[in-house]
Order: sequence, then C-alpha cells, then structure tokens
Amino acid sequence: MALKEWTKRGEETLFRNPWWTYKRDRVTLPSGDAGEYHYVQTPGSVMLVPVTADGRFVLVRQYRYLNRRVSIEFPAGGIKPGQSAEEAAHAELREEAGFEADVLVEIGQFNPFNGVTDELCHVSVATGLHAVPAVPDATEEFEILLMDEGDIRGAIADGSLWDGMTLAAWSLYQSCKAHAHGSGSLPHGQTARNPAADAER
Amino acid sequence: MALKEWTKRGEETLFRNPWWTYKRDRVTLPSGDAGEYHYVQTPGSVMLVPVTADGRFVLVRQYRYLNRRVSIEFPAGGIKPGQSAEEAAHAELREEAGFEADVLVEIGQFNPFNGVTDELCHVSVATGLHAVPAVPDATEEFEILLMDEGDIRGAIADGSLWDGMTLAAWSLYQSCKAHAHGSGSLPHGQTARNPAADAER
Repeated sequence: MALKEWTKRGEETLFRNPWWTYKRDRVTLPSGDAGEYHYVQTPGSVMLVPVTADGRFVLVRQYRYLNRRVSIEFPAGGIKPGQSAEEAAHAELREEAGFEADVLVEIGQFNPFNGVTDELCHVSVATGLHAVPAVPDATEEFEILLMDEGDIRGAIADGSLWDGMTLAAWSLYQSCKAHAHGSGSLPHGQTARNPAADAER
Repeated sequence: MALKEWTKRGEETLFRNPWWTYKRDRVTLPSGDAGEYHYVQTPGSVMLVPVTADGRFVLVRQYRYLNRRVSIEFPAGGIKPGQSAEEAAHAELREEAGFEADVLVEIGQFNPFNGVTDELCHVSVATGLHAVPAVPDATEEFEILLMDEGDIRGAIADGSLWDGMTLAAWSLYQSCKAHAHGSGSLPHGQTARNPAADAER
C-alpha cells in the first residue's frame, strides 16, 4: 500500500527570528480536505562525532536554557546562509570543541523533530583531530569532555545525556559501524574510508 | 567549573496553533547582557518501544509532509492537556499501532530539539502486546512494521529510518539494555522488570 502524499497549496511566513522562521502552509490532505501545517523552518544543521586517535569521543557540556539543565552533546550547530554542510561542520568543531579535523565523513542525516520542523541534521564522523583555540560566540559556554563508548552508554542510561540529537547521532554512528563491519563499506557509497576503523586505531 | 545559568525576566506568547505555542522569553545572559529566547512550547510527548513476545519491534510507516518523505518511526504522540505520560503512551500505542500493552516501563526522557523546544519526550518499553483495531485520526495514515534488531540497524544505516526521535529512543533502549544486563536492574529505580529480558522471551 502506498502512503498518500499531501499537496501544498500555499505558504506564509508568520514570524522570523534570528534563528528560525515560523511558517504556515495551506495543504490538501489525502482525504481531499483543506488543512494547515505550522512549522519551524531552518536551513539545516550539522552534528559531529569526533573520534580521537585512541578511540574516545569529544563531547561538550553546556547549559540548556529551555530545560534549565546542563546537557552533554556532540558538537553541533546551524548551517549559515551560503555555507555548505561540510563548512558548517568544520566551523562548529573548531568553535565549540576546539579541534580541527583532517577527515570528515558524512554518515547520514536525520530530522530531529519531524512533526514540527523541516530541519535536516547532517551527521559526520571527524578524525585526524588537532587541538586549536575554541572560539564560542558570546551566548555560548562549553566544557570539553572525552568519553569512551562505555561512558556514553552510562550517561545515556542514567539520564545525564538527554539531548535527542546526540542520542540520534549515536544510533546512526553505531548502526553505520555495525553495517561497515559486516559489508566492508559505509553506506551512501563512501567506501574509501571507514570511520569505525579510524575510531579503533 | 560550573556552567552559568540564564535568568528569565519575562515571557510572551507570540502565536498559538492547535499543536504548539510560539513563545519569546526575555532573559539575562551570564555576561549580564539582556537577550531573547524564541521557542516552541509543548506539553511534552511520548514514544513507545513495543517489543513482541518473539523479540521483534513494532514500528509505523507514515508520510511526513515537512520533508515529503515516508518515515519509519516508533509509535509516538503529544501528551494532551490533563493526560499523564502513561495514559498518552497507552493511547498512542492503541491508535497508531493497534496494540494494547500489559506492561509499560518508562526508561528515560529526552528533548528532541533542545535549542528550539522545551518538549520532553517520555520513552517507554511496551510488552505483553495484544492486537486491537487501530483508530488513527483523520490526518494520519499508518502501516505497521515488525522489525528485528538487524532490520532496524539496516534501516538506520541505509537512511530509510531518518526520524531523529526514533533514533534517540533506539539509543536509549540499547543503552538501558546494556546497563540492565551489567547491573541486573534498569535505571530510575525500576528494578522489578527488565524490558530487555522481556524482549528476549
């Protein structure tokens, strides 16, 4: 059975802030009825899974205002106008975590909140890391963490890692690693380099 | 080093739609500067990891308008006013997937998109499943999938499972299972029942 598509009839911008745009589309549902879809439009985002030479992962601790809690996350950020996903990934890794990467391999994309936003987050594994001075912007404050797989699993299980995008990137990383291990290649035609193998060097 | 908190000075509702509310808070940053935080407020959500007696997982395929793509997801939905997370979880499992569960165990919470929303998604493992007629609402159309762990890993690795909330719930499930396996108990004091053991019956 094919799932029926919805038809877009028009769109309207209800509000624009410096970070995202509130839009409303007029749509026709598969039933033929008219409807509205309210959503958060963004130019997309990037998240990095940075892996050190000894197989640990670089994460950042930061304060998250909306839940009034400290959060443990992979480095991430929005793609700025005119920037490619790869440029944004290099920039976030440098600014948030203070690393430059010799190699970035995109392992997949996900939508963090697909009922509410059209955002696609590009996830890349970063290897060949070199420390550089971090340059967070004025509203950001970060602490760098080096965690191994057991640390990350423990932080997820005990609730201290509660950022959905980091959890999602971790699933993607683990699944691509298992897949690459089985087939000798990464998905999306990236057969030249295996980030899981890099992680274990 | 303690991460500094932000101070809320006031809040304003900019727009209310049937699904979420667009709010703007006035805040004071740790630097002392005044700022604004624009966000999507919701009453929270639930996601189910339903495990059958033979250790497979129940997922749903549905059309996602914002990315114009079919998506594979665990059953999920918003918590309605006056509803507990547990009531919402039973309702979504019945309405989307067509199952009632003898046992629901909450294994954790995450924020799917923590720069933009205050939403917390409660993740529960559902076992003791009985089929009942599904009753999706007028705008929803679902196909039920039964997948084993390898199927899910494969769908993540090949990009056909791209829903961030499902990826996040999968990380949480896997980490709690590994943790329960090591310690003989689930986190959050839930020692009476081990959903991972249920999954393997």
